[in-house]
Amino acid sequence: MYYAVILAGGSGTRLWPLSRRSRSKQSLKLVGERTMFQHAVDRLAPLFQPEQIYVVTREDQSALLSSQMPELPSANIISEPVGRGTAPAIGLAAIHLRKRDPEATMAVLTADHYITGTKQFRRVLETACSVAKDGHLVTLGIKPASPSTGFGYIQQGERLGLVNDFPVFRVERFTEKPALDAARQMVTSGGYSWNSGMFVWRVDRILEEFQKQMPDLYTRLMEVEAALGRVDYRAVLLRAWNRVAEWTIDYGVMERAADVVVVPVDIGWTDVGNWASLAELLSPDQDGNIFVGPHHEIDTHNTFVFGGKRLVATIGIQDIVIVDSEDALLVCAKKREQEVREITERLKRSGNIQWL
Amino acid sequence: MYYAVILAGGSGTRLWPLSRRSRSKQSLKLVGERTMFQHAVDRLAPLFQPEQIYVVTREDQSALLSSQMPELPSANIISEPVGRGTAPAIGLAAIHLRKRDPEATMAVLTADHYITGTKQFRRVLETACSVAKDGHLVTLGIKPASPSTGFGYIQQGERLGLVNDFPVFRVERFTEKPALDAARQMVTSGGYSWNSGMFVWRVDRILEEFQKQMPDLYTRLMEVEAALGRVDYRAVLLRAWNRVAEWTIDYGVMERAADVVVVPVDIGWTDVGNWASLAELLSPDQDGNIFVGPHHEIDTHNTFVFGGKRLVATIGIQDIVIVDSEDALLVCAKKREQEVREITERLKRSGNIQWL
Repeated sequence: MYYAVILAGGSGTRLWPLSRRSRSKQSLKLVGERTMFQHAVDRLAPLFQPEQIYVVTREDQSALLSSQMPELPSANIISEPVGRGTAPAIGLAAIHLRKRDPEATMAVLTADHYITGTKQFRRVLETACSVAKDGHLVTLGIKPASPSTGFGYIQQGERLGLVNDFPVFRVERFTEKPALDAARQMVTSGGYSWNSGMFVWRVDRILEEFQKQMPDLYTRLMEVEAALGRVDYRAVLLRAWNRVAEWTIDYGVMERAADVVVVPVDIGWTDVGNWASLAELLSPDQDGNIFVGPHHEIDTHNTFVFGGKRLVATIGIQDIVIVDSEDALLVCAKKREQEVREITERLKRSGNIQWL
Repeated sequence: MYYAVILAGGSGTRLWPLSRRSRSKQSLKLVGERTMFQHAVDRLAPLFQPEQIYVVTREDQSALLSSQMPELPSANIISEPVGRGTAPAIGLAAIHLRKRDPEATMAVLTADHYITGTKQFRRVLETACSVAKDGHLVTLGIKPASPSTGFGYIQQGERLGLVNDFPVFRVERFTEKPALDAARQMVTSGGYSWNSGMFVWRVDRILEEFQKQMPDLYTRLMEVEAALGRVDYRAVLLRAWNRVAEWTIDYGVMERAADVVVVPVDIGWTDVGNWASLAELLSPDQDGNIFVGPHHEIDTHNTFVFGGKRLVATIGIQDIVIVDSEDALLVCAKKREQEVREITERLKRSGNIQWL
């Protein structure tokens, strides 16, 4: 059986002041009236039934996510006591799935990306699942839209074939976030995809890789697996997670794993990593403005106002991003958005964590 | 005896979104930790004792103002059922004062202006009171700082003398808010002052002028005076005020009154009529920024942030005014502040009165 596992444990700060320690990106309504997490579940239907959809999140976020998706079985919300990166999160989901279905194939998906081509996305997922059945570790590669230095890149190797019209390549190499020159070369060469963080594999295959490449984590996972269904499960998980190191699946497994393939796809995937990338998903008016929430404007141009309930009035401004959250406000020149991180770092340093 | 009468009935919209129908300018903390109304009372001490200080305001604002100045006797807060402009407000205060003290001299003062030279202000007031004792209607003229088209102007006539080092001139003419050319000429000529809206006169003298020049209002005032201390006072006042026309004291009385004099003064008087004029009262940092409330800034210049409890973060912006109120936010180019009025007018037209 196929299962979807949505990783929803992050706590973004790049979308500050909207995303916060306690209000992760996936819990926000960034596009339309559904949260990013709700979109992530919505786009799986009708390929996956609710009981086939799992979520891995942090304990302190699970109630919020559950309430946003009441149709998901509560047993399918897997909580981590603390976030340890994608490798432990995926391992934890894998042992839960193996207990339910030793033949399980899992699609590892994200809740903090937006996908406009949902129909194509489901076709890709279905294809990747069938490829994974044969034991391949399948990665979904995104056709690079720009020489971004914010993503890892996947180099395509030998072409193994065409499945449902999707070409499948052996992965030659995973490249971590590159410098701009290297990114430009990779995009120009055409043989690279962005690493989307979406993977499909059989549960037994990924656990085999954990055993080989991350034996410490694997040992902890086996302790937790033994406690599944027992009353001391949470205590065992907590003890294990206190000892587990923070690792991404890319570093920890994928870079040296056997039989990794990539399916390059074009599904309207967006990282929504900052306010500019969110603005690209929304439709500007004839003056280049995007207004979310109640507003009045006079002579305002190329401005993105992400508001909420409060009225935002703008007069005579241009090329500005305004983000209005309940207890904090950002007014930022459009080209300076990457410096939002500097604000959150200052808040951390100065101890003003109520705004983090 | 001398009395101060503070007119505090306005409801500003030029300082939107902070000033509102229900939150008048005088009830706001614009400069420091005291509201404009509190400043207006504070600067009278020690010249006036609390029992010598009267306030005229709207019924729906009197509780708020009382709570801001609990040391004022509640009997000294005179409420109007509805605002009818300065002429009826001053007439109402005059009959209250005449009942208490037929010999009263009243200084009519404002709560929506800021005065930095408070010591000099009290010297002026004391002087004006002594001039008014002789029956003159004394106006305080402000030395024009610019050819403003936002104020009325007072033309000085014959110089009557020097009292406590202050020259006293007969008033030649009151001029309503002029066009820019006329304003420039008046400022250059040197013989004009801004009309500050501050007046000093004997109660019997101003009531005499009402009788002559505004006989309808005078008749209503006499009805109300007859009801002072009676249980039907409020009913009589309400009936009278429903019939009273809206008039300013300038149009209604001053322009044609007998024996009007002006004392030109230099007391650091500011109208605080818009965000730019408030900014001039506050001290900018080395980048020309003024921040009120919690903030973090990166590369921000010549920007005025009037915040409150919420954090305001600014990145890479300049020459902007940001005003953050509880339920509405203004982001405005500095040179476009006069267009704030257009926003409030749109709110009125569109029926969005919750933000007015």
